[in-house]
Amino acid sequence: MKSNLNSKLTEGASGLVFYSLTPPKITTDPERVIVIANNQMERLQHMPVDGLILYDIQDESTRTEKERTFSFIHTIAPEVYAQQYLGALKVPKIIYKSIANQTQEQFTSWLKENEAIDYAVFVGASSQQQIEATRFSLNDAYAARQQNCERLMLGGVTIPERHSKKGDEHLRIFHKMDKGCRFFVSQCVYNLNDTKNVLSDYYYHATEHGKAMAPIIFTLAPCGSLKTLQFMEWLGIEVPKWLYNDLKHSKDILESSVTTATKIAAEIISYAADKNIPIGFNIESISIKKEEIDAAHVLLQNVIQLVKPVAAPVVVEQVLAQEPEEVAAV
Amino acid sequence: MKSNLNSKLTEGASGLVFYSLTPPKITTDPERVIVIANNQMERLQHMPVDGLILYDIQDESTRTEKERTFSFIHTIAPEVYAQQYLGALKVPKIIYKSIANQTQEQFTSWLKENEAIDYAVFVGASSQQQIEATRFSLNDAYAARQQNCERLMLGGVTIPERHSKKGDEHLRIFHKMDKGCRFFVSQCVYNLNDTKNVLSDYYYHATEHGKAMAPIIFTLAPCGSLKTLQFMEWLGIEVPKWLYNDLKHSKDILESSVTTATKIAAEIISYAADKNIPIGFNIESISIKKEEIDAAHVLLQNVIQLVKPVAAPVVVEQVLAQEPEEVAAV
Repeated sequence: MKSNLNSKLTEGASGLVFYSLTPPKITTDPERVIVIANNQMERLQHMPVDGLILYDIQDESTRTEKERTFSFIHTIAPEVYAQQYLGALKVPKIIYKSIANQTQEQFTSWLKENEAIDYAVFVGASSQQQIEATRFSLNDAYAARQQNCERLMLGGVTIPERHSKKGDEHLRIFHKMDKGCRFFVSQCVYNLNDTKNVLSDYYYHATEHGKAMAPIIFTLAPCGSLKTLQFMEWLGIEVPKWLYNDLKHSKDILESSVTTATKIAAEIISYAADKNIPIGFNIESISIKKEEIDAAHVLLQNVIQLVKPVAAPVVVEQVLAQEPEEVAAV
Repeated sequence: MKSNLNSKLTEGASGLVFYSLTPPKITTDPERVIVIANNQMERLQHMPVDGLILYDIQDESTRTEKERTFSFIHTIAPEVYAQQYLGALKVPKIIYKSIANQTQEQFTSWLKENEAIDYAVFVGASSQQQIEATRFSLNDAYAARQQNCERLMLGGVTIPERHSKKGDEHLRIFHKMDKGCRFFVSQCVYNLNDTKNVLSDYYYHATEHGKAMAPIIFTLAPCGSLKTLQFMEWLGIEVPKWLYNDLKHSKDILESSVTTATKIAAEIISYAADKNIPIGFNIESISIKKEEIDAAHVLLQNVIQLVKPVAAPVVVEQVLAQEPEEVAAV
């Protein structure tokens, strides 16, 4: 029998809400990892989320020449973290898998070893340099999945900012759908204009060519400091100048960013509802500071209220978040 | 005694509403010009507008290599049209004066001959080519006004789209204020993001440097056809892709554009109110088709409702508009 999430994705349902986590650094003491995982599960178990995304963090230093805001440290592999530490949480796990630095053989072995994974999102190399090093592309990864484990429910990444430069992001989405993707998760969005532009072209292309639309899950994240804002820019997230100014001058940048992200969610919902475009949201915390994680949970509740207004209100539990006062390995 | 509009502009008041007209073509029969002017006055006399802008249309073919959507035909000079045909309308007239193709001598003569003008906006050359031809710049025009008729209340043009390319539109505004401008009229705006970006930088620059802000009057215009939409693009107006798509696929592009422009007005009001930035609106009809002028009047009423909700409701009179079924000489 298919799970609830699987059916919803297959049907192209709107209104899905995901939460996303970055696994702890590989250098973290295993007992500490258990504490972190238990805290995360405790916070999430009462939330009506449809899925939990676990990121696969790669060193993207070849993507840009700009200096990385936070230093890069490897994290526990998401499938390992999901299986060994988050097993008690009865929420579907969506495993990100970066294909950067993977050869065909390595990737196929990974697929076979992880047949138990139900949901995955393959992430392409972040630079041409990486692709050339291994001669293994995202299309190769899609083909390998089709050959080895077609039951794996596959999602793709979409980047609205890319649309304003190249204008073909909607075509990339349809191309990925042809290759087996049944849902899409965006990079964190702070630019409503870019977001509406890609949704618009997606919708009109689908209408004109009689194509079905897969759900697009928009990632939203609070921003607690100028440093996080700079890191978001390093990641390629386009923050409009007026919003950048407002956040920079805000007395409480974190609260402002939650209000802003909630407004963006409301506007995306309103825009998509008019056209029946299936959309959903993924809430993440860019940094792992306790207050930013708290803010991500406030944002999660706000978005759930917008998307699923009938869901019972949830009491926020004040549990200790992962490694307070420390910034993310993301 | 200073007029109401003069005081409001000097004080940096918010909430001003202008309407704008392009004078008829110089080839129009004088008796027909009287009919057109009477119709325009009849429609406007009951509207609580603070000012009537009269455009000075120039051939801008050296600005861009793209083919002009509508062919260019000279129009009656705005100061002539205001004085000879619209004298009975008791609304302050704001005379646009293009300095393109003017020499120092020609411009100074014009200033002296038109001492009776109370409000003017000088428009710079649209290409470097034009400036080089006459060796007369906008700064020269500002200096000439300061020397010859300082009582003339001066406005400047602002183009939010330019801000997204050069990032210095707010500094241009302050520079023009130093040269005597006391208000600014934007090019027609359909891009809320660009508009908020320039307002934001304007506001934070004023706050950080303890400067007063002059009112920024945002121009809004209905769009009745794909041809008008293309002409707007020729004029350099940035229409977001999603909005372009929606207008293109709309069953009633004119109605959609009025709804959109009204929403843009509401969002600008909301954004500016939070920061006490003085803003206002100028409603224009890009084309001179009857239904586009009708739509401009609906938009005008909508904007008045938003800006001056206490103003008495006005009955729209169905008077014949200028040259129905014909496109503008704009």
